[in-house]
Amino acid sequence: MEAQFIRWLRDNLPSHPLLVVGPGDDAAVLGSTGAEHTVLTVDMLADGVDFQLAGTDPHLIGRKALAVNLSDLAAMASRPLAAVIAVMLPCGNAYELGQALYEGMLPLAEQYRLAMAGGDTNTWNGPLVISITLLGVPTGSGPLRRSGAKPGDRIIVTGQFGGSILGKHLYFQPRVEEAILLHQRYRLHAGIDVSDGLSLDLYRMAVESNCGAVIHAQSVPIAEDAHRLARQRADRSTALDHALGDGEDFELILAVSSEQAQRMLAEQPLAVRLTDIGQFVAEPGLWLMDEQGNTKPLRPRGWEY
Amino acid sequence: MEAQFIRWLRDNLPSHPLLVVGPGDDAAVLGSTGAEHTVLTVDMLADGVDFQLAGTDPHLIGRKALAVNLSDLAAMASRPLAAVIAVMLPCGNAYELGQALYEGMLPLAEQYRLAMAGGDTNTWNGPLVISITLLGVPTGSGPLRRSGAKPGDRIIVTGQFGGSILGKHLYFQPRVEEAILLHQRYRLHAGIDVSDGLSLDLYRMAVESNCGAVIHAQSVPIAEDAHRLARQRADRSTALDHALGDGEDFELILAVSSEQAQRMLAEQPLAVRLTDIGQFVAEPGLWLMDEQGNTKPLRPRGWEY
Repeated sequence: MEAQFIRWLRDNLPSHPLLVVGPGDDAAVLGSTGAEHTVLTVDMLADGVDFQLAGTDPHLIGRKALAVNLSDLAAMASRPLAAVIAVMLPCGNAYELGQALYEGMLPLAEQYRLAMAGGDTNTWNGPLVISITLLGVPTGSGPLRRSGAKPGDRIIVTGQFGGSILGKHLYFQPRVEEAILLHQRYRLHAGIDVSDGLSLDLYRMAVESNCGAVIHAQSVPIAEDAHRLARQRADRSTALDHALGDGEDFELILAVSSEQAQRMLAEQPLAVRLTDIGQFVAEPGLWLMDEQGNTKPLRPRGWEY
Repeated sequence: MEAQFIRWLRDNLPSHPLLVVGPGDDAAVLGSTGAEHTVLTVDMLADGVDFQLAGTDPHLIGRKALAVNLSDLAAMASRPLAAVIAVMLPCGNAYELGQALYEGMLPLAEQYRLAMAGGDTNTWNGPLVISITLLGVPTGSGPLRRSGAKPGDRIIVTGQFGGSILGKHLYFQPRVEEAILLHQRYRLHAGIDVSDGLSLDLYRMAVESNCGAVIHAQSVPIAEDAHRLARQRADRSTALDHALGDGEDFELILAVSSEQAQRMLAEQPLAVRLTDIGQFVAEPGLWLMDEQGNTKPLRPRGWEY
C-alpha cells in the first residue's frame, strides 16, 4: 500500500519553491535562501511491526529507531545535524521505557554529533510507537538521489547481505561516513540504502532512474547469517535468496560509471568492502544472471508494507 | 509523567553547540552557520488519546494534527516552513484514511505556504497514530520563549477559553500570524500556547520564568462553550473552571510590561480580542484573585499526560 500511497502523495501534494526533493526519495531536501540545503527524513517504528518489545532490550530498540533514520541520511550522502523524537509509550513502566530508549540512542547521537532537539513524549494503552525526524546537510557534491543511474552504470554495494534478523538489524552501523566519503571522492550517479531488501531497493532505484538492472548471482556478497538462516529454515530458501530479499541490511547500493567503479574497487577506500554486483541496463526490469551468463527475470523481493 | 521525563531529558541529553533552545519549550531552536535559525517542533497524536477516530471525520483529524503543531510554532512566534509527517494507519481502509488525513491538512498547509516535505506511511493492526514535525524560522525579534516573564509583567491572552471539546479543538485557527505580528510590533517577554489548560500552561510559563502568576477571575474571557459545558455537566463545575482547565483552546498567553500591555490593549491590533487577565509576581506559585481582591492558591489544572 505504501507505493500506491506515495504515488497519490506525489500527485496531490502541492509543489513548493523550497522543496528541492519531495516525497519518494530516501529523504526530502529543503532549499533555503542561504547556501545550505536541509535534508529531512522521518521513520516511524512500532512494536509488533519493526521490533518485538517483549524479549528485546529497549536500549537496542531506541538505537535501531535512530540508526534507520541515520541510514536514510547516508542514502542521501548527507551529514546528520539534529533529531526530533516523538514516542507513544505503553502505560505501566513508561518512564523506565522512555529512559532506556533514549539511553540506547545517545551513543549513536554522540558518534554523529547529533543535536537532540527535543520531542514529544506521550503515554497510552497501545503498543510502543517511536517516530524520529532527522535533519541533515548534504556535502558539497549535493544530495545523492535514487534517480540518476544510467544504463551501463555498475551496481556497487557496501558490505554483505541477508540474515539480518539473526542480529544485524539491531546492531548495524549506518553507512553515513562511508556515503559521504564516497560521494566526495567519486562521481556517484545515484544511491539508496537497503532497508527493505537488496532486490527490492535496487529495483526502486532502477524505476526512479527509468532503467533496469541485472544482478550477477555469483557476485552478491552473502552474509554468514544468510547461510545460517538458509540452513535453519525448512523452506528450501537459499543463502542467495536471503541476501536478495531479507532486507534490514542497511548497506548502500550505488550507481557509478564503469571507470569510476574500477577506481573504487581498486582503491577500496572504506573499512567495509565494496563489491560490483552487476549493471544498470536500458530496458526497465530486474534480472538475475547466472555463472553461465544466462539471465532470468527476478521478482523484486523484500519487506513490502 | 511527561514533566518528570522532560526533566530527565534535560539532565541527560548532551548539550550541542547548534542547539540554541533544547527540550522543554514549545519548540527547539537550531542555530546554523548562516544567519537563520531553525525552529523545530513535533506532536504525536493517537486514536483514543487525542481524538476518537470512530465518529470523527478523518479530514478533521488530519487538520488538527497539523494545527496543533502550527500552534507550537505560533507559541515561538515563528513562521512555518516545512512539515514532515509519519503515520501508522490501521489495516483495512488504510489508503482511504491516509488520503483523508492529508486532504484535511492541505488547506492549512496552503494557508501557511508549508512545504510538505514527505514522510513515512505505515500500516499495522493498532490504532491510528500521526506524528508531525514542523520546521519554522523565527522573525527578526528572535524565537519567543516560555521563560522571560518578569514580576510585574501583565498576562495578556488572545481569544476565549473553555469548552473546546464541544468543537473548537477540531476547528481552531492556530495563532501564527497573530503571534508574529505581536512579536514584531511589541516587546514580548515570553509566550506559550494553551494546549493543556490556561492555568496549567500559565503555570509552566511562570515556572520557566522563575516567578509566579495571579489570575484575575473576573477578567478571564470565558467562551460560550464553557458556559454550555458547565450547564450540561452535573459535576457543579463552573464556566470559569472550564476556562481555566479544559485546554485545547490553542490561544496565546503572553508576558509583557505594563506599558506595552496598555499599548496592546488600546490598539487591539488583531481580529481576535486581547485581554489582560492578571500579572506575574515574584513569589513562585499560582493564585486566583476574586472581585474583592482576595487571592487564593490555584491548582494548575489541565490535560496532564
